[in-house]
Amino acid sequence: MTTTALVSLNSPYTFWQFSDRHAEQLRSAFPDVRLRLAQEDDVPVEIGTADVYFGWAFDAAWVKAPTRLRWTATPSAGVDHWPVAALDAAGITLTRGYGYHGQPMAEHAMGLLLGFSRGLFESSGLQTRSVWWKDDLASSFFDLYGQTLTIVGCGSVGIHLAEVAQAFGMHVIGVRRRPPRSEPGGIEWVPADRVREALTRSRAVVNLLPATDQTRGFFDQTAFRACGPGAIFINLGRASTVDHGALLDALDTGPLVGAGLDVQPSKPPPLDDPLRHHPRIVLTPKSAVFSDAYMDQAVAFFRDNLRRFLAGQPLNGAVTPTHGGPHDSH
Amino acid sequence: MTTTALVSLNSPYTFWQFSDRHAEQLRSAFPDVRLRLAQEDDVPVEIGTADVYFGWAFDAAWVKAPTRLRWTATPSAGVDHWPVAALDAAGITLTRGYGYHGQPMAEHAMGLLLGFSRGLFESSGLQTRSVWWKDDLASSFFDLYGQTLTIVGCGSVGIHLAEVAQAFGMHVIGVRRRPPRSEPGGIEWVPADRVREALTRSRAVVNLLPATDQTRGFFDQTAFRACGPGAIFINLGRASTVDHGALLDALDTGPLVGAGLDVQPSKPPPLDDPLRHHPRIVLTPKSAVFSDAYMDQAVAFFRDNLRRFLAGQPLNGAVTPTHGGPHDSH
Repeated sequence: MTTTALVSLNSPYTFWQFSDRHAEQLRSAFPDVRLRLAQEDDVPVEIGTADVYFGWAFDAAWVKAPTRLRWTATPSAGVDHWPVAALDAAGITLTRGYGYHGQPMAEHAMGLLLGFSRGLFESSGLQTRSVWWKDDLASSFFDLYGQTLTIVGCGSVGIHLAEVAQAFGMHVIGVRRRPPRSEPGGIEWVPADRVREALTRSRAVVNLLPATDQTRGFFDQTAFRACGPGAIFINLGRASTVDHGALLDALDTGPLVGAGLDVQPSKPPPLDDPLRHHPRIVLTPKSAVFSDAYMDQAVAFFRDNLRRFLAGQPLNGAVTPTHGGPHDSH
Repeated sequence: MTTTALVSLNSPYTFWQFSDRHAEQLRSAFPDVRLRLAQEDDVPVEIGTADVYFGWAFDAAWVKAPTRLRWTATPSAGVDHWPVAALDAAGITLTRGYGYHGQPMAEHAMGLLLGFSRGLFESSGLQTRSVWWKDDLASSFFDLYGQTLTIVGCGSVGIHLAEVAQAFGMHVIGVRRRPPRSEPGGIEWVPADRVREALTRSRAVVNLLPATDQTRGFFDQTAFRACGPGAIFINLGRASTVDHGALLDALDTGPLVGAGLDVQPSKPPPLDDPLRHHPRIVLTPKSAVFSDAYMDQAVAFFRDNLRRFLAGQPLNGAVTPTHGGPHDSH
C-alpha cells in the first residue's frame, strides 16, 4: 500500500516555507511515496488519507475519527502547542526536529550577551544625545573571557551554544534534569535540583527550558537572587518558565544588569508592558530561530526520518514512543 | 650602573591604571632596577634620569637634550601618536604591546556584527513603539554561519578575532600588506593590493588598520562599493583610514546595511554629526579595548621585555629597530 505524506509548512517568511525545491527533493528521494502539499485550511480533509504528516501545528480534532495516520513530524524544537497526549493515545508517533536550531540560537544568544557585556545597547542609545559616553561604558562593561555561563535546559541547542561560548574563553555549566554521563565539549554538568549552585557562579545565564508542568516559573525570585552579581539573563526558551515580576525586581535591585528576552508572556506584549520599557531589557520577537538555512535542514532531518519510517526503524526526535512504521499499519 | 625604569600609566579607568600591585610585581621581579612612578606632569623632570620609560604618551621635547633613555614602551597596540622618527633618530627603541588586545576586541567586533546580523539594535529600537516587529526582523536578519568575514590589517588582533568567527562557522579572509607564508588558523590570506577581491566576497568587514600615510582613506568609495550586498562594516582601527562620506553613501545607496564604528573622525563627534544619527550606524566611544585584564597583561608583557632589555636581547613589539639594551649605553 502506497505511503502518503502530507506536508503543510506555510509561513509568511521564505526561510520557513516548504518550497517546490523541497518537494522535488522528497519526490526524487522517495519515488514510491505519494507527496501531498496542503494549505492549513485543507489539512482537516487531506489528513484522512495520510500516513505521515509534516507540519507546524496539529489539531487533536483531526484524529478523533479512526485514522491511518502513524507519524506526525514538526520542524520545531518545542512541541508544547502539540496535542502530545492525544497523539500518543491514538498510537501516533510525534517527532520534533533537532540539530539545526543551535546555529541561529547560538548567534542570537551571543549577540544579546555581547550587546550587554560590551555596552553596545547602551552605547547605541547614548550616541544620539550624550556629548561623550566613554565613562558610562567604562563603568558598566565586562569581559566575557574567563566568566561562567550557565545554560539551563542544555540539550543539543545548548551544546552548540557552549562550543561558541568556549571560543570566547567562557567556562560553561550545563544544567539538565539528568546530566549525561559523558558528552563532548568540556561542559561542567549540574543536575537541575542543584541549579542555584551553578547560578551563583554565573555572570551569564541562558534559559532554553521547554514549557512543561515541571518548568513553569522555574526562574523565580529565588533563582534570580542566586545569580552572580552583574549577571545577564537571556531567555530563548519559553516565557512560562520565568516569573517576569521577579525578573524586573532582580534588574532593579540586583543582581541582574541586563536581560534579553526572545519570548514574552503575551505575544505581542501590550504597548505599555514594563518589559518593553525597562532600560536594561532587550526584546526580540521570537526571532532567535530565524535562519536562512532552516527549512533546508528541517527537510533533510525529515528525509532521514522518512527513510527510517519506511524501513520500520525508530525515528529520531521522537517525543512519544515510536509506535512503529508503515509495516505495523498494514 | 643601576637601571632606572620610569612608569607613568595613569587613567581615569581602573583597568588602565598601573596599580601598587603592578609596582610590587616589578620590584619583586627586578630588585636591582630602580622603579620610579610619575604623574604625567612630573615626567619631563623624571625622564632625565631614566633608562626605560613605560607610559601612554611621549613628547619629543623630552629627548631634545642628551639623554640616557634607551627604551620607551607603551601598552597600546597603536603608536600613531608617538614621535617614532624622533625616538629612532635619538637611538631610542620604541615597543608597543600585543597579544592582549585581541580578546576584548574580538568580543567587541562579534558583538557589533551579531547586533546587526540578528537585528538586535533594530529590535531594541522598535520594542518601545512597534506593535509587533517580527516582519521587520525577518526581512533584515542573516546568518553569520557560512558567510565570509574579511579582516583588513589582520595581525595578532585579527588572528584572535578569526578564531572566534570560525567558531560561528564563518570563513575568514585576512588582508595584510605582506601575507604570512604560513600562520595557524585556516585563514585565507590576501595581499592588500587585492583587497577588493576579498571585499566582494564578504558579508562582514572588520577594519583593524593602523593610522599611517599608506592607510589614510583606505576605505574609500571604491572599497565600499566592492563589498558584498548586505555587508556590515566594523571599524576598530583608526578613523583616518575611512572616508566617512563614502561610508554614509554606501549605507544609503548600498551595498552596506550596517556600520559599527569604535573610532570617529572627531572625538567626541559633534552632536549633529550624521554618524551619530544614521539609523544603521552604532558608535562606541573607543571602548573596544576596554578589558578588566588589560593592565595585568600589559605589565606581564613589559616584564618579559624588561628581562630581555637587561639581558641585551631584542625586544618584543619593537616599532623602531632595537637599539640595544643597557650594556650598549655604558
